[in-house]
Amino acid sequence: MATDKDGITPRAKDYGQWYLDVIKRADLAEHSGVRGCMVIKPHGYAIWEKMQRELDDRFKATGHVNAYFPLLIPISYLSKEEKHAAGFAKECAVVTHHRLKTIDGKVAVDPESLLEEPLIIRPTSETVIWAQYKNWIQSYRDLPLLINQWANVVRWEMRTRLFLRTAEFLWQEGHTAHATEKEAREETWRMLDVYADFAENVMATPVVKGRKSPAERFAGAFETLTIEGMMQDGKALQMGTSHYLGQNFSKAADVQFLNKEGKLEHPHATSWGVTTRLVGALIMTHSDDTGLVLPPKLAPIQVVIVPIHKTDEERVKVVEEARKVAAELKEQGLAVRVDDREGIMPGAKYYEWEAKGVPIRLEIGPKDLEKGSLCLVRRFMAEKPGETPEELRKRRKTFPPRAEAIASIKPTLDAMQKELLERARAFRAARTRVVDTIEDFEAYFKDPNAGFAWVHWAGEAKDEEQMAKRFETSVRCLPFEDQIPADARGEGKCLLTGKPSSQRVVMARAY
Amino acid sequence: MATDKDGITPRAKDYGQWYLDVIKRADLAEHSGVRGCMVIKPHGYAIWEKMQRELDDRFKATGHVNAYFPLLIPISYLSKEEKHAAGFAKECAVVTHHRLKTIDGKVAVDPESLLEEPLIIRPTSETVIWAQYKNWIQSYRDLPLLINQWANVVRWEMRTRLFLRTAEFLWQEGHTAHATEKEAREETWRMLDVYADFAENVMATPVVKGRKSPAERFAGAFETLTIEGMMQDGKALQMGTSHYLGQNFSKAADVQFLNKEGKLEHPHATSWGVTTRLVGALIMTHSDDTGLVLPPKLAPIQVVIVPIHKTDEERVKVVEEARKVAAELKEQGLAVRVDDREGIMPGAKYYEWEAKGVPIRLEIGPKDLEKGSLCLVRRFMAEKPGETPEELRKRRKTFPPRAEAIASIKPTLDAMQKELLERARAFRAARTRVVDTIEDFEAYFKDPNAGFAWVHWAGEAKDEEQMAKRFETSVRCLPFEDQIPADARGEGKCLLTGKPSSQRVVMARAY
Repeated sequence: MATDKDGITPRAKDYGQWYLDVIKRADLAEHSGVRGCMVIKPHGYAIWEKMQRELDDRFKATGHVNAYFPLLIPISYLSKEEKHAAGFAKECAVVTHHRLKTIDGKVAVDPESLLEEPLIIRPTSETVIWAQYKNWIQSYRDLPLLINQWANVVRWEMRTRLFLRTAEFLWQEGHTAHATEKEAREETWRMLDVYADFAENVMATPVVKGRKSPAERFAGAFETLTIEGMMQDGKALQMGTSHYLGQNFSKAADVQFLNKEGKLEHPHATSWGVTTRLVGALIMTHSDDTGLVLPPKLAPIQVVIVPIHKTDEERVKVVEEARKVAAELKEQGLAVRVDDREGIMPGAKYYEWEAKGVPIRLEIGPKDLEKGSLCLVRRFMAEKPGETPEELRKRRKTFPPRAEAIASIKPTLDAMQKELLERARAFRAARTRVVDTIEDFEAYFKDPNAGFAWVHWAGEAKDEEQMAKRFETSVRCLPFEDQIPADARGEGKCLLTGKPSSQRVVMARAY
Repeated sequence: MATDKDGITPRAKDYGQWYLDVIKRADLAEHSGVRGCMVIKPHGYAIWEKMQRELDDRFKATGHVNAYFPLLIPISYLSKEEKHAAGFAKECAVVTHHRLKTIDGKVAVDPESLLEEPLIIRPTSETVIWAQYKNWIQSYRDLPLLINQWANVVRWEMRTRLFLRTAEFLWQEGHTAHATEKEAREETWRMLDVYADFAENVMATPVVKGRKSPAERFAGAFETLTIEGMMQDGKALQMGTSHYLGQNFSKAADVQFLNKEGKLEHPHATSWGVTTRLVGALIMTHSDDTGLVLPPKLAPIQVVIVPIHKTDEERVKVVEEARKVAAELKEQGLAVRVDDREGIMPGAKYYEWEAKGVPIRLEIGPKDLEKGSLCLVRRFMAEKPGETPEELRKRRKTFPPRAEAIASIKPTLDAMQKELLERARAFRAARTRVVDTIEDFEAYFKDPNAGFAWVHWAGEAKDEEQMAKRFETSVRCLPFEDQIPADARGEGKCLLTGKPSSQRVVMARAY
């Protein structure tokens, strides 16, 4: 367990170490003894549960239902769709035997239990789900089929990073089937909008919506849409993707339906997913050198109440008051915790809950009881121009009368949710440049914390590789028209090749 | 897709086929192309989600938090606890390689990707979780550690049965650590009580709570507690288990904590779990020859509204009324579906929703609109003595005035929930015998649908084997004292060996 002696490396000093320190201090996750696999600790998992609930409600509101498909996929399934196989038949966990035996107290693989056909642990489920859809789809009446799965997947990874890249991770994967290309493409856009709405209005993380370049498409997709967020080191993070798969998978799995005219057709498919990587995105968008900062909508504990006392007599009274206040806040539907642990000083408790990102802290001492007031401390607050850290800290702490304090919690949390989004938007704006020449591009990306560059681009895959080699940047997306800032609109010429370009793209370094 | 022509084999004719037919007609699950793995279809998964929510709320109310641990377990972890290894190092999915490669368009295992140490897909997670607890537990202040995980597990199975026995299944597994044996044993009992409360008050399935005999204990446990339900063929089904693991796993993983006296000790462990098998138990406890019967608390759709119309003009009016009624019921927090699908006759809709177990159906036609009433049909109703099926069917259908109908839905659902539990209790009582001699036992179990026998038992493992061979029965549990019916209390002599026995046990055939 981390003690309050463990500090957090400042972001400005070492961003990578800061990220790990925040995770450790907030007690979100850690590496396991199993290569590449992480353990999501209770506080981290509680955030993921909140995300799941919000997303699941949105999936259901758009007509989707959940189901569950096998973890294991016969390798012959992969061979059916050529591009998909090329993309996913790589680093994965392969099951080859089905029995162990104990020899001299040591456990070993029983060689006689070799499987006829090896199985892989799903890296994604298109092939195994479409094999099943063959039984489910016969007529246009069976369409659209709108199914989502919450599951674990494994993609063997050599270099791992908590939440951002691990061999096993948790995700949801939507897999839908439609009678027409038009309907399927609409679904692809609809789900990207669901993700963008979740990112902005729940995670308080602004995103750019757009298309992936052919080089970055999902293996087997006709089109991949993406939302891209900006982290505090200026790097882009792909936060969710939605794919139009055409008839690739329905043909590979031999799925056909009778259309209204009585003719056999292959349905059109989509798939879309977000992962536990979003917890990493959340950390890197909002947190500070004190630890985790959480948007109130995703905070497993929204208000922590810390009773302060010296004598036993005081303790009884303030703890009683703390419980009363907690009960009143819980009635408002708020997630509240009274921290009446003994043997831990109030200061250590403040430190712990700030590191864990609890948005509001109430301190209740004997003097507050006397005065009929509460001490309310906000985890963060937008800085005013020219304000010193000391002034800001004072402003974060107020002493409203009890009733007023209790009535103010909900509006304060709403305000904090908005402030975080505004702060993230301002941060992104400050790290975004419209760039027209390769020289300006080079100059901009000399800064290791450079952000997004809006550039004209008409290069091919090999040109993208060249940019990656020179600047470590990539085309994050071809943004939808309504995503393009006013000063970046219009046609132009590719900054590398000089070829004509119809619109700008977002280039950035990325996770 | 099943059509309304597909019948359901009567329970009395072929119970095994009836079970499969109900699953098919209710569209709950099916086998996949992956050996031993099932697909949980949306209606089946929605029931599991309802179960999860109810259980998760109960776990959290008793102080537990969720977390997530790796899917893959190095085989060396298993060797650490001898009995556990003997129990679980058997049929399991073994990962030996981490890469595929495509050769001539065919996907194959890359032999160069052999892992140094094989990994198994978790059949249960004690070893991998306790390896992690080593980092989490240092002092008595870190205890109790009360953690639950929702996850998939794999136990290679040759003969599978939907929901009841499949290679992969979904479950929750609680893993707790305590400073003392007393606290750990209390936890074991507490969680068994949570399971029993869920079984009786949510699933409407009465259970017997008790201890497993040493032969039936979880591999590595000091004591295994169980809840046993009775299915409609009289067989027992183990519905949940809770284990006191002593210090076996904390010693194997070398976990120690400083107690209040400053001495190092190994913590005491428990684990407890229920699985998607509970969906099978639910089906087999309540369903009938018309299809699935669901306790209202677990029904994904509690009320279905079917509009009836001939002309287009009528359709517009009744569908509008159906939506109004649905909105009013949704405001009460009920799960409602308006089935306004076109091209399907009302009779076919009734048949479909009855097979899917929806507790209440409202039919709305032009005449109901005129009269200001609704037609309310209950999915099931307790039979009155001497009642004919026709009389019962009439009683299930009523025509209350609109307002009365809407006000009656919630109380009716509550009454149905109670009726199901009472019906299941009466069923169990009718199939339970107190048996004193092996001759009476033999006579009773000549009936393939015999139920529970309360017998005195003092046999050893080999005697249990003998009973299993002769009668296919097993000791389901050594019931807790308060579970024993009045006529089965007291001491006696083992019906097989004649040895003295301090209390009766439940013997039955089982799934």
